[in-house]
Amino acid sequence: MGLSDIVAGPRNEEGISAAVGVLKQRYGDRLNTGQSMREQHTHTTTYIPGQLPDAVVFPENAGEVKDIVRICADHKVPIIPFGAGTSLEGHLNAPNGGISIDTAHMNRVLKVNQEDLDCVVEPGITREDLNVYLRDTGLFFPIDPGANASIGGMASTRASGTNAVRYGTMKDNVLSMTVITAVGNEITTGTRARKSSAGYDLTRLFVGSEGTLGVITSLTLRLFGIPQSITSGVCPFSSVDDAVNAVIMTIQMGIPVARIELLDAMMMKATNDYAGLDYPETPALFIEFHGTENYAAEQAELFGEIAAEFGGGDFIWASDQEERNKLWKARHDAYWAVLKLRPGAEAIATDVCVPISRLGECISETQKDAAEAGLLAPVVGHVGDGNFHSSLMINRNDPKEVASAEAFIARLNQRALSMEGTCTGEHGIGQGKKTALVNEMGGTLEPMRQIKRALDPDNIMNPGKIFSLS
Amino acid sequence: MGLSDIVAGPRNEEGISAAVGVLKQRYGDRLNTGQSMREQHTHTTTYIPGQLPDAVVFPENAGEVKDIVRICADHKVPIIPFGAGTSLEGHLNAPNGGISIDTAHMNRVLKVNQEDLDCVVEPGITREDLNVYLRDTGLFFPIDPGANASIGGMASTRASGTNAVRYGTMKDNVLSMTVITAVGNEITTGTRARKSSAGYDLTRLFVGSEGTLGVITSLTLRLFGIPQSITSGVCPFSSVDDAVNAVIMTIQMGIPVARIELLDAMMMKATNDYAGLDYPETPALFIEFHGTENYAAEQAELFGEIAAEFGGGDFIWASDQEERNKLWKARHDAYWAVLKLRPGAEAIATDVCVPISRLGECISETQKDAAEAGLLAPVVGHVGDGNFHSSLMINRNDPKEVASAEAFIARLNQRALSMEGTCTGEHGIGQGKKTALVNEMGGTLEPMRQIKRALDPDNIMNPGKIFSLS
Repeated sequence: MGLSDIVAGPRNEEGISAAVGVLKQRYGDRLNTGQSMREQHTHTTTYIPGQLPDAVVFPENAGEVKDIVRICADHKVPIIPFGAGTSLEGHLNAPNGGISIDTAHMNRVLKVNQEDLDCVVEPGITREDLNVYLRDTGLFFPIDPGANASIGGMASTRASGTNAVRYGTMKDNVLSMTVITAVGNEITTGTRARKSSAGYDLTRLFVGSEGTLGVITSLTLRLFGIPQSITSGVCPFSSVDDAVNAVIMTIQMGIPVARIELLDAMMMKATNDYAGLDYPETPALFIEFHGTENYAAEQAELFGEIAAEFGGGDFIWASDQEERNKLWKARHDAYWAVLKLRPGAEAIATDVCVPISRLGECISETQKDAAEAGLLAPVVGHVGDGNFHSSLMINRNDPKEVASAEAFIARLNQRALSMEGTCTGEHGIGQGKKTALVNEMGGTLEPMRQIKRALDPDNIMNPGKIFSLS
Repeated sequence: MGLSDIVAGPRNEEGISAAVGVLKQRYGDRLNTGQSMREQHTHTTTYIPGQLPDAVVFPENAGEVKDIVRICADHKVPIIPFGAGTSLEGHLNAPNGGISIDTAHMNRVLKVNQEDLDCVVEPGITREDLNVYLRDTGLFFPIDPGANASIGGMASTRASGTNAVRYGTMKDNVLSMTVITAVGNEITTGTRARKSSAGYDLTRLFVGSEGTLGVITSLTLRLFGIPQSITSGVCPFSSVDDAVNAVIMTIQMGIPVARIELLDAMMMKATNDYAGLDYPETPALFIEFHGTENYAAEQAELFGEIAAEFGGGDFIWASDQEERNKLWKARHDAYWAVLKLRPGAEAIATDVCVPISRLGECISETQKDAAEAGLLAPVVGHVGDGNFHSSLMINRNDPKEVASAEAFIARLNQRALSMEGTCTGEHGIGQGKKTALVNEMGGTLEPMRQIKRALDPDNIMNPGKIFSLS
């Protein structure tokens, strides 16, 4: 967590003022310096205090992004690319001031190649809007981090979510990107070919680079056919361990679950309270199968047998869309449900990911640790990938609680590391996990820094994120 | 192709002689300067003339690799990492001389984590040896480029092959690596977690970097459960277009074929002749399904319906292992079968990959082009990915044939590019496709060069491959 690390850096006042002047002249009303607009562009769902940019600009196309980047580069002014503002680790803060480039107006679908199962989009489109657009084609974009994030933002944090166990993460589903580099050149990282061995994999380098290497102006995405049949279910277990063991066996047997999500007892209670549901308030798995009707049924049956072996209770199944939507809405609303557990408190998300053989142990130790520390920390997890979130409900104004939460998170990240896992499965580093990344990566940070220095010599692209340069 | 581009560069004689001296002292018989050993380390299946390293060294472990890299770095001497020598584009040549680091002795499986479906291996192990080792665990490593390549080499060229349509390529199946960087530091690019958002994706940067950024000393790989049921089949079609249209519909319908390979009529003839088989000598698809028995059967039936729609002939099915092995051996022996088509000729592999909607057109135009140019160029393709190989059978000693082949390949790469594809789906750039990469990537090469310069300031890691630095 390290909130104490989040300090403002030096500001290039002269450059900022010059760049804002030029941008104002060129972009008029699309350059906004109002306090509330600037606040909105740092802080939405993150627990990290905002550090405001000096202005927010709304380009309409790649050419304008290039123009804006060149102006900022000329004056050595920081650039913070902005999508939908749903990131969780202070990715959008401007510790050295600078210009927030909001891609909200760049939200078009440029092309759908139905035969090739791909499409080209601008970065500002949200995943929900994209899927609404695609509905008539019989195709969908599967990555679903819960929040209605922008595709550009999802690429930048290497997002994943509930479908990743079957469809992979953003790294697996971006075929190519166009990017404006820190020196204002437009590059295209790949083609529409499904695979390639054509030089360094810049697509994968930009995916997950959190805006520190350039501004994305378009993305070519893989799409999938909407499955013929989708079956979802909720299955209660008497312990987290039993639920996780059922997951491990499911994965080992190669059953291609599309989603397999764990909610612990506290989270199930929160979900019931929030959504007026009456699920058993024990640990539960939310599961989904995609396929032909026979296949989805066969897989569900196989999973039922596995669940029974680990004492799983009665399944609540749903195959019609309305029921399924209700079920997954309950899961997706976990964040809001958690906030209701302790009114007035703020939620701090954690994001460790470990090999699944260590997952039960990692969750149990984490629950025990939270109880001992007197912290309210319900758990949801993308357990098929070994990734889970403990959401800490704290009162930010109580320094003792803050210190206790910081210590808990440090222990959690260390626990994941000791189990050969990572401090972040899908949220990214931003400002909030920089210390954790140093612990995790050690000397491997040096090549990352060398790449950053080589591609962004003046450190204008989202400075202060992922790692410190000095 | 550009054989004329493959010229020797400047040699640092003093440094090379000093480094060889130190290495000889330390590694004794494991440092070899014999002519035939040096020749073996540049040229096996490639058409590109050899440029010999000055010595070949056989380290036993990562510590020795580090030591060797440091000695070479101290003397600014080139390093060429060597696996099994099955690369196709001059990846192993030493245009500036230097030391070939052969990882043959580093061929151990360091750990199998059965519950997590992963393993840790040294780079020198071949894919076949790995799968023999894994057999008792019920797991397998799916990437299969045909040749019995080393895992380190496969990572370095971002290899894929027949299974990629279902299991992905090396980029999807390497979770982490340890690498000795150009300055002799050991770094670890990731953890055993299935997914991560922990900083820049160095794993994916090193995968496909062809030894130009460091020497791999271990890899953590994803494994898969050996499917309960495997069904393979061969289906003849009356034209390449029909076969490809059947493939397009199969992919669009989301039928999870494990393999779907095209052989054109000339290649089927070559295969029959080589292996004494009697398949119809028309274009054919080789297909494989993995899953539960019911599922594999259901998929095979669905595919049968699709094939019939496009005039596919009678299937020849095989589900017992011996029959399947025979079928796939025929496919895998395509390279050798081709050589028999024109005794004494050499095969030059091509490797374009296009969006599948353009595949039929791309193959047909390529066949027509070859016929018009009087070139013998049978086709095999990993058609589920849009990737195919035209193997040119030429007499290297005939300058007219060489020129004709070079022109043909340039047209082929340009054709793929005009169809939004790439010049290389899986073989990599090496020396042979550097000009094609310039045409394909243009300004995107500049960030690649910047990364190379940042991570390897003295340009000692496999110099002269992928792109020129000046």
